[in-house]
Order: sequence, then structure tokens, then C-alpha cells
Amino acid sequence: SRFLPVAFSGTWLCCLGLVQGGKVLVVPADGSHWLSMKILVKELYHRGHEILVLVPETSSVIHGSESYKTEVYPVPYTKEELYQKFDRLEDDVFRKSSRMTELHNNVQLFIDYTSIQVNGCERVLNNQSLMTRLRKEVFDLVLTDPVLPCSSILANVFSIPTVYFLRGLLCDLDLQASQCPSPPSYVPAYFSGNTDIMTFPQRVTNMAMSFMQPYVCKMTFRHFDDLVSRYLENKTTYKDLLSHGAVWLLRYDFTFEWPRPLMPNMVSIGGINCAKKAPLPADLEEFVNGPGEDGFIIFTLGSMLHNMPEEKAKQFFDVLWRYTGWLPQNDLLAHPKAKVFITHGGTHGIYESICNAVPISTVWRSKLTPHDVTAEKILAALNKLIHNKSYKEKVVELSQVHLDRPVEPLDTAVFWTEFVMRHKGAAHLRVSAHDLNWIQYHSLDVIGFLIIILLTVLFVTVKCCLFCTRKCCRHGAAKRKSE
Amino acid sequence: SRFLPVAFSGTWLCCLGLVQGGKVLVVPADGSHWLSMKILVKELYHRGHEILVLVPETSSVIHGSESYKTEVYPVPYTKEELYQKFDRLEDDVFRKSSRMTELHNNVQLFIDYTSIQVNGCERVLNNQSLMTRLRKEVFDLVLTDPVLPCSSILANVFSIPTVYFLRGLLCDLDLQASQCPSPPSYVPAYFSGNTDIMTFPQRVTNMAMSFMQPYVCKMTFRHFDDLVSRYLENKTTYKDLLSHGAVWLLRYDFTFEWPRPLMPNMVSIGGINCAKKAPLPADLEEFVNGPGEDGFIIFTLGSMLHNMPEEKAKQFFDVLWRYTGWLPQNDLLAHPKAKVFITHGGTHGIYESICNAVPISTVWRSKLTPHDVTAEKILAALNKLIHNKSYKEKVVELSQVHLDRPVEPLDTAVFWTEFVMRHKGAAHLRVSAHDLNWIQYHSLDVIGFLIIILLTVLFVTVKCCLFCTRKCCRHGAAKRKSE
Repeated sequence: SRFLPVAFSGTWLCCLGLVQGGKVLVVPADGSHWLSMKILVKELYHRGHEILVLVPETSSVIHGSESYKTEVYPVPYTKEELYQKFDRLEDDVFRKSSRMTELHNNVQLFIDYTSIQVNGCERVLNNQSLMTRLRKEVFDLVLTDPVLPCSSILANVFSIPTVYFLRGLLCDLDLQASQCPSPPSYVPAYFSGNTDIMTFPQRVTNMAMSFMQPYVCKMTFRHFDDLVSRYLENKTTYKDLLSHGAVWLLRYDFTFEWPRPLMPNMVSIGGINCAKKAPLPADLEEFVNGPGEDGFIIFTLGSMLHNMPEEKAKQFFDVLWRYTGWLPQNDLLAHPKAKVFITHGGTHGIYESICNAVPISTVWRSKLTPHDVTAEKILAALNKLIHNKSYKEKVVELSQVHLDRPVEPLDTAVFWTEFVMRHKGAAHLRVSAHDLNWIQYHSLDVIGFLIIILLTVLFVTVKCCLFCTRKCCRHGAAKRKSE
Repeated sequence: SRFLPVAFSGTWLCCLGLVQGGKVLVVPADGSHWLSMKILVKELYHRGHEILVLVPETSSVIHGSESYKTEVYPVPYTKEELYQKFDRLEDDVFRKSSRMTELHNNVQLFIDYTSIQVNGCERVLNNQSLMTRLRKEVFDLVLTDPVLPCSSILANVFSIPTVYFLRGLLCDLDLQASQCPSPPSYVPAYFSGNTDIMTFPQRVTNMAMSFMQPYVCKMTFRHFDDLVSRYLENKTTYKDLLSHGAVWLLRYDFTFEWPRPLMPNMVSIGGINCAKKAPLPADLEEFVNGPGEDGFIIFTLGSMLHNMPEEKAKQFFDVLWRYTGWLPQNDLLAHPKAKVFITHGGTHGIYESICNAVPISTVWRSKLTPHDVTAEKILAALNKLIHNKSYKEKVVELSQVHLDRPVEPLDTAVFWTEFVMRHKGAAHLRVSAHDLNWIQYHSLDVIGFLIIILLTVLFVTVKCCLFCTRKCCRHGAAKRKSE
């Protein structure tokens, strides 16, 4: 076996030399998701594993590297068609709409996205020569972002354990697939906008949304479900397939997320994207040092938002400088003169902000919503964040708690990835809830049975009582008659 | 502050020098519980913390040490009275009884135990000079076994964060106090004897027992509840008090326990008692090497069972040697010639057996029940365990999985203990479920509200329909009449 079981004597770090190289198939999602997964992939390479990354030909972010081989596969759509979808999403961001319309639009867009992904995936599954080559490689592990369906199907077809790398899936499909209990009384439902402390009306909406979640999932992931049931056993859903994942690496940390129950095979690696800091390039260093002690502000709307409407942009750039090239966000945030971070609210940025202790203003939440932003509002928000010491103090406290951990997120991610390779899965962490159907899981059959027993006992008791009373009465009547 | 917040750059182990000494108040439970807690206490001492251990004068296992100071407090019962209780428990073990009788006896014994503990605790709480001294020490942390009530009251009175060290509490009080979801469909209820895979009748008993658990708890811990509500705010229960614990260190590992959901502030440190191995004393080494390649067998009935009835003992000692002195169990199990471990099923022994990869036979489960054990049965069980290779293979596999962990259990326990000292608790890991009452937690008010709405809508709809139909009918009738 290539994976010697290792009895660790001190910490596992001392023994890494004993873990021999494995073969990993990586199926990443495009865009910002890849940026943090790449950190793990590169580290796996440094530890001696052989890595193959499956890349759709339309990808703009996933490039070749000396750390991993890439296998580019053709897809039945062009880069332009893909971008059009993203542009629609961006347009929506700048249009004011109600929460329900927003949810509906998001779901609709995601359904479009899934149908594209399914088309792409079928090109892989039907590509006999590629499939034969992949099978011949005899991978030890599939590392993937479950926002894509292909990897889980490949893992199933090739019988390889899977490690998921994600923040969370639409309609909490990840929580459903891992059987993670989420009491709606304090765990905010996906897209509910609630926190973990809710008023009664909020709990009502949260309950309603939690209840609707499985139906939203069924609708949202129907293309994935179709694909899965076409290529695997009939009636297998994408959720069923996901439930076989060995370990869930969650870009999740309770300094930012609301505390909630987790499953044994869920591992928090929130802040993994903040691990490595590099000095800024000379031109950028000069730029950020320009204002002297006043420091500088970092503003971003994420990797997916590149065409903000002119009049909106003007509001921001009345206050801020414009830079449309790529910026090393984490290195900027790590700079001692970084004062404030304005973000669209992507988790990468939020964790980088927490780990570097830079006060955050999210565009969405702090009334800087893209639909009604003005230069004045931005200025007021910035002034508050810079001059009110409590924001800095709070983020420093969060940062200290976030960074105080027994193992760094990257090392944790590597450990569990290698663990799954060494033991061909993580069977001991799999709850047996996966073998129960919906009725059994919620003990509805047991409750039904207990109610029937209760009713029977009640019925018999009442009948007996009635019988006795009647007998007594009759007896009494007979007595009276005879008297 | 004595606890500098530390930004760890690599692993935390590199930075231990930066964690300055804190003051820890340790309130241990007597008996085997102390044996594993002592490992953590000694390690905390080695890392520069100052430790005071509160010891009842009747304790037989908790001795003074150079690693910690002890404060011996008088209790209103003698060692003999305490032992009498334990002897009753042991007598019960050798008496055959049904599961329900067994449960009832256990609960009754535990209630006796709690009433003794409460008496002991009151001697501490009413001892003004001791309380003043303790208060003056200004501890940073209370480390305790929650099977005792006193520590949590002291922590509350002195406003110090608490770290619990335990395997589990009777009637799953720990799970209830930490708000840990335990779906009865696959999480075996305390003392149900079920596994995580249950038949329908087993699920019925499991459900019934889960449902009864809060009432069993109320009965079992009523002395603790009385004590708590006497010394703290009225109507505070022991469970309420426990719910304020910062971190739960659970002697728990999924190589042995059934996988289940956990809370963010629960940390698995199963196998902590297996950390350090010492060579055997010369006489014991000679003894175990006696049989040569055949190896030796370790048999124990735990620290609480010392007076087995004569005729039972004979059955065992027809097969095995007798040794009534203290044995270094873990060192014996670590010996390469250890072949089989027969145990009463205490978790310390089980984890030591797993980590040393020695096949286990528990007296209780493998039909070697103390009530009907015979020399033949023991011999048959031993032969099976020694000669059937599959037992050894299985335990080697378990051992490899158990020992393959990113941080050793002792280091994990130290990390979280120090974490709580550094941050004065672990507020970010506390679920807001603690702020909900029972009705709110289960969303019963929300469900009631939704049902009322549903019924109202139904009622109005039906009324409208009836009204319309009646109108139509009347109109029709009128028409017919006029015709």
C-alpha cells in the first residue's frame, strides 16, 4: 500500500515524511472558489502527492501550474455564453427588488448555471478516451467543490473516496446531505437573512423557509438529479450521491458564522485563504504608502462583478480610487496601513479581513446597498469605521480568537485529505442516519405506533368503563325492578 | 493581562512559551475519573500554570503531588460510609436482573451518591474561611468533572469560566445541557443498550427512553437541583448551570463511539489516558515474559470492583492468575506480548486497548456476564479471541484510525483549557439555543401559529364555499319556485 498507517507519537507534523504520495483528482469550480482550493492543491503537491486538475476549456481562472497537471476538456458552450450568465447575475445586483424576487432570481440563475454545468459534465462522462485514461490513473481521492456534479459521479463510477471543499451550498443541500441537524429555532435558514437570535415573526419565516428548503433544493438541483439518475442507479438524487462524501472541509469559522451543531465528518477550515502573506509589489507599496499615516481603504465587489453601471460607479469613485486590475487582496489587508475594507460580502474577503484585523463594511448589509448608494453614504460609513475605535477593537478581538487554533486551517485541510487517502475514506465518522429514510429519521413510524397504542389503550379503557357502568346500571335497575 | 493573545504563525505548539501561567481550580471526581484528569492537570503544571485541587477528606485516589497544591475539605461522612455505597453497586453487578431493574438500581444508587456529594459540597460552600481564601486566589478557570455539583456553583459564584472533563453523564444530562441534538432514530439513548443501527422495536424503546430522559434526569439530579437553587438564583437547575460551561472535553472518539452530531464547544479527547507509556516494573516484566511466545492476558473489573463473590472468582481463577495489587494497565496493554484484554467495559480500559491494538472482551457484553460466568465460557471466549485472526485485524485497524489524528488528545485538552483562559471563555462557540425555552427551541409556538393560520384559512374557505353553494341553491330553488 502506498499509505503506510502511521502511529503518531507527538504531533502529526513530525511524521509527514512517512505519508507517501497519493494520486488526487481535483475537480474545482471556476471563479473565486478555485482561489482557496488552489492553496490546498499546491500544499498537497508540496507534500509529494500527484495531482490532476480537470478544467473546462472555458475557464478563465484555472491555469496550468508546475504543482499539478491539468486535463482540459471541451464543453458545449463558449466563454461568452458563460459570461452572459454572470452578467445577468451582476445586473440583478444593481436592481432593487424584494427578498422573495431576489431569492427567485437567484434560484433561476443557479438553475441556468446547473444546466450549463450538466452539459459540460456530460462531455466528460461521454468522452470514452478521457474516462478510460482517468480510470487507468487509479486515483486515491477526488477533491472537489460540490457546486459541480461531475466529480461526485466520477468518484462513484471509479469507487474513490471524496473530500468536499466548500463554504456551503444553495438551499443548505450540504447540511441535508450530511444529515446535519439544523433546528430552525436558532439556525438561520439559507437566504433567510436571519441571525441566530430571532424574534417570533423571524422564527416563523425561518421555519417556513427551512420547511421549503427540500423543495427549493429539488427545484434548484433538478438538472443534477437528472444527470445522476441517468449515469448511476435510477432514482439516485444528487443529495444521495453527496451523502457518500468522506469529509466535508468547510470554509467556516465560528468567529464569523453563527454557532450550530456539526457532524463528525465536517471540518472547519475557515481562514485557509489567509494563510500566506507576500509583500506588496513595489508600485502598490508606493501607492498605499502615499497617504502617510492616514492609511488606505480596500474596496472590492468580488471577482464576479466587473461591470458596475456608470452612475453607481461614480458614487464610489467620488470617494475612492479606481483600480480595475487584479489586486492581491489578502496582502493588501495584511498591510499595517490598511484601515477599512469595503466588500460585497464574499467569505474570502471577510475571513481575510478578520485574520488581518481590518474593520469591514459589507456593501449589502450596511445600507451601502448597490441600488441606492450615494457618495455621502459611503463617506459617512467610512468615517464611522475609521474614527469609532469600537469597530477596530471588535475586529482585533475577533481576529485573536480566529487565529488562536491548535492547527492552521491549511494543515487541517491537508491532514484530513491525507487521512481519507490513508484509510480509503472515513467510515468511522459516517452517521448511520444515512441508512434511514425520511420517515424513519424523524421517527414518524415510531410516533405513529405509539399513538396507535395509546389510542387502543384509551379505547379499551373507555369501553371497559362503559361496559362496567352499563352492567352496574342494569344490575341496579334489575334490583330496583325485583324490589 | 496574564494571557497575551497570541497570533500563531505555524502550529500553536511553537508558541507555547508565550502563554503565561494561569491559575486553575480543579474539582475532580474520585476514582477512575481522576486518573485521566490527572494527566491533564500535570501537563498544565508543566506548562507553567498554578493549580489547586479541591479534595474531600475521604478521597482514596487523589493524593498530593509536586504538580499541584491540594485543599482538603472535611465532609460529613466517613470513608466507610462511602465504600458501603460502592459495595452495594458491586453486589448488584453479580446479581442477575432485568434491564429495567438494573436501570432503577443504578438511578437509585446514583441518587444516593448525589445526596452524599451535596452534603460534601455544602461543607465547602458554608466554610466561610475556605470560600474567602478561594475567592482571593482569583482563579482564571475551573476545571471539573460535572458528575460533581460544587465546581459549577463555585465557578458561578466567583464568575470564572468552566471547562468540563468527562465521558458522559447519567441520562445524557451533558447532551441536554449543551443543547446537542440527538435524534432518537440513530443516536442510542443512555442505558438503552442500543447501537446506532436499530430495528423498529429498538427504535420504539430508544424513542421511549429518549422521551423519558428529562424526567429521569429531574429525578436523578434532584439533590443537585435543590443545592443549586438554594445557593444561586431560585429555580436555576443543575442543567441550566452546566449549560454555561465554556468547553466540554469529552473522553470520546468515534473509533469507539457511534458517530453523532456534536456542538462547537465539544472537543473529543478520547484516548487521553493512553498517552504515556512506561516500561513495566522488573517483577511484572518477568511474570509476563514467563509463558514465552504464547503471551499473556489482562483481566480487570475496574477500580470499583474489589470484592467479587468467592464462587464467581473461582470461575475466573480456574483459567487466570490472580493479582489483587495495583497494575499499570496501560503499560501492560502496551507490552508486545499482551494477547487479550478482558474488562468490565470501563472506557479507560477500552481506549487503552484500542490504542495498543489488543483485542478486547468485555465481561458484560460477550456473554461472560458476571451472573452466569463459568470457567468453560471464559476459556472458549479467550480461545476465540486469541486464535481467530479477525479480532486482532479489526482492533489493529481501529487502532490505526484512532491514533491518526492532527493533534494528540492531551495537547488538544491543554489547548482548549488554555484557550478558555486566554479569552475568558469561548463565547463564540456558544449556541443561542441556550436563550430559548423548551417551547421556542422546538418551535412549538411557531408550529401552533402556523396551524392556527392554516385552520383559519381552511375555515374561511369552507365557510365561503358553503355560503356560495347555499346562495346558488337558494337562487336555484327560488328560480324553480318562480317557474
